[in-house]
Amino acid sequence: MKQTTASICTIGDEILIGQIVDTNSSAISQALGAIGVRTTRMVSIADKRSDIISSLRKELKTNDIVVCTGGLGPTKDDITKDALAKLSASTGYVRHKGQESVIHRILSARGLDVLDINLRQADVPDSCEVIINKLGTAPVMVFRFDDSKFGHPAVLYSLPGVPYEALGALGDVVDDIKNHFILNSIYHKTIMTYGIAESALSELIAPWEDALPADMHLAYLPNPLTGVRLRLSVYGGDAEDIQRRAEAQIKALEPLLGSYLYSLSDDTLEGTIGRLLRGTGQTMSCAESCTGGEIAHLITTVPGSSEYFLGSVTSYSPEVKKSVLGVDGNTIENYGIVSSAVAEAMAEGVRKLTGSTYSVATTGWADAYGDEHEPAGTVWVGVSGPRGTVSKRFNYKGDRKRNIERFAASALNFLRLYIAQ
Amino acid sequence: MKQTTASICTIGDEILIGQIVDTNSSAISQALGAIGVRTTRMVSIADKRSDIISSLRKELKTNDIVVCTGGLGPTKDDITKDALAKLSASTGYVRHKGQESVIHRILSARGLDVLDINLRQADVPDSCEVIINKLGTAPVMVFRFDDSKFGHPAVLYSLPGVPYEALGALGDVVDDIKNHFILNSIYHKTIMTYGIAESALSELIAPWEDALPADMHLAYLPNPLTGVRLRLSVYGGDAEDIQRRAEAQIKALEPLLGSYLYSLSDDTLEGTIGRLLRGTGQTMSCAESCTGGEIAHLITTVPGSSEYFLGSVTSYSPEVKKSVLGVDGNTIENYGIVSSAVAEAMAEGVRKLTGSTYSVATTGWADAYGDEHEPAGTVWVGVSGPRGTVSKRFNYKGDRKRNIERFAASALNFLRLYIAQ
Repeated sequence: MKQTTASICTIGDEILIGQIVDTNSSAISQALGAIGVRTTRMVSIADKRSDIISSLRKELKTNDIVVCTGGLGPTKDDITKDALAKLSASTGYVRHKGQESVIHRILSARGLDVLDINLRQADVPDSCEVIINKLGTAPVMVFRFDDSKFGHPAVLYSLPGVPYEALGALGDVVDDIKNHFILNSIYHKTIMTYGIAESALSELIAPWEDALPADMHLAYLPNPLTGVRLRLSVYGGDAEDIQRRAEAQIKALEPLLGSYLYSLSDDTLEGTIGRLLRGTGQTMSCAESCTGGEIAHLITTVPGSSEYFLGSVTSYSPEVKKSVLGVDGNTIENYGIVSSAVAEAMAEGVRKLTGSTYSVATTGWADAYGDEHEPAGTVWVGVSGPRGTVSKRFNYKGDRKRNIERFAASALNFLRLYIAQ
Repeated sequence: MKQTTASICTIGDEILIGQIVDTNSSAISQALGAIGVRTTRMVSIADKRSDIISSLRKELKTNDIVVCTGGLGPTKDDITKDALAKLSASTGYVRHKGQESVIHRILSARGLDVLDINLRQADVPDSCEVIINKLGTAPVMVFRFDDSKFGHPAVLYSLPGVPYEALGALGDVVDDIKNHFILNSIYHKTIMTYGIAESALSELIAPWEDALPADMHLAYLPNPLTGVRLRLSVYGGDAEDIQRRAEAQIKALEPLLGSYLYSLSDDTLEGTIGRLLRGTGQTMSCAESCTGGEIAHLITTVPGSSEYFLGSVTSYSPEVKKSVLGVDGNTIENYGIVSSAVAEAMAEGVRKLTGSTYSVATTGWADAYGDEHEPAGTVWVGVSGPRGTVSKRFNYKGDRKRNIERFAASALNFLRLYIAQ
């Protein structure tokens, strides 16, 4: 069975000039992928009638579905709506009563007068169906084309550009697609690794990857902060069957990955630490020098982290290392501020200060500095816990911001390995 | 003079299936806009040879410049490179010695073996020029076409997909464009504000904005974390003349903005605090509860922050607030953990602990919780310094992550206003 395909188009100068990053397309593609529709292209078009018509026509020729967002709004909807009317050979506009009510409701709730310019947003080409946008004033328009126009049946969905409204309408759009297309099943599974480079990972799992059946595809998505994410995709066939077969393949992959593997869902290192600690009564704390609060920040972005995260000290100056964390001045003097001994003393200090089960500490040179002991880009990570205190050195060659992020990721992973031991 | 135009293409399934959001295109468009090149389209293409060739050919036909990112990497570069070789009628591959050295340097620094799969990244079609990618292993390839191929001279730049590497190479790409095209002059000036909404700001400066000459354009770029950024753009004319005229307009705008204005360059709130403190001998510290280290993290991303940032305590548990920061248990009991009194006590506590000139503290409810004193989304910010201790309440309606970021921005701005007084 041929796979149903889609193209996602954003309309609007604000994306083209780089003023805003397009996040709608990614969310729409995920929603389509989940029901077995493959996105073949994403396109951003200027607010220009001729560009909109020619681009949408081209996308409809080569895809079953086109989802476009943007180009609608009280001050600029005319261009896009006009282009859609022209493309669909509409004979005029009609006012949609359901959307008109929503406009009244929304503006009254904000204490605003309902102007004629607002009500005109409920006017749509008579060639379309409407899905009411409950969260905003511009309706979702659905244009259906039989195979006489593009050589195959095609549907165009026009959604508002505001992400909150576009994503709010997405459920109705997905339902409409499911009602009008016979879809292939699809299965994706994400495998998160940390501590191994893409090329080495590829070598490590080559025998397994080479033996994958033809309908399974593996993608490598490297990210210096979360590690290499692997994604196994299976298209077509019976839904339960492909899921069962994919899961069997992942079972076989797990032992090859060993402790590089940290999650079989789309989780982060800090989320994984949360998973290890939550419900166990165990707690953690951190002492940060060069990472300056980034580790504590990442830990506390996880909902429910207050259950196991007690607190953290960012000791940027040597005085705070001594006075708050109790690091011995001689240790700093003898081994250098960036050293195994100081990282371990910081970890032990904050663990004692907060009474946590585990602690993690960092001391390093994030940028151009460095000293006679260690060069720039070096971090020493200390971890302390019931099995004693350990430390490890990492070195990176980024700029200040990048190094801080990598130091934090390395520290989180070192802590994860200690806890999971 | 006809304006030079560009199309920006991203290559890779990870964007098409919605696994990652494309941030490169936006950054590239901004950089092109800054030198007077207008982006007419953005396109995302699958990792498929035929799609890559047909899409790039189409974009080159209608634009002077095509910048593509992605589709390069040790495990998958063959498809994109092969497509580019075909498109540019290359007769074979050559190994680029400069990029080869970078590969050796980067992998050795990470303690990794240099595999053949790594070195092959330095192989490029003989039809291209190379801009060395100093931050990663895949080189930037430049393909120049005379007007015989697409009816006009055209250039295709192929950049790696990793944002850090793509943006790192962007400066060299921009220089290459400036050397090969005669561009219209253009002048942009950024004005950073915080603490005023876009619509209110628009009303405040309406008389000034309405009186702007026809060749000047003002854009509003609202961002909940850095405030509303204004960008004044002037296109065409003599470069020195447009700069002088734009600067005169900004001089007139400054008094209207008052203390909302925090920077006339593309600076952040934390960068502005650094500017206020550096070289004065004054220092700062923070005590964070709900922001969990985010403020310290932002402060320490500023190069040179170790000169004025002494340290920080993240006191996530009430015990750490008491034992480390010396907040009185009765204060917490009587006023609630999220209160003016606790915020001020935390600020005073960390200022005493570190001996800093200034301190800033946060206590709030970042997500679904809240108590009988304050609802979810509330933060109390305390600031302490030579002129005493003050506090202020802010309330937001975001999710956990968003609220944490807004709390941190509000706290930084409150500190900025105190220091600048």
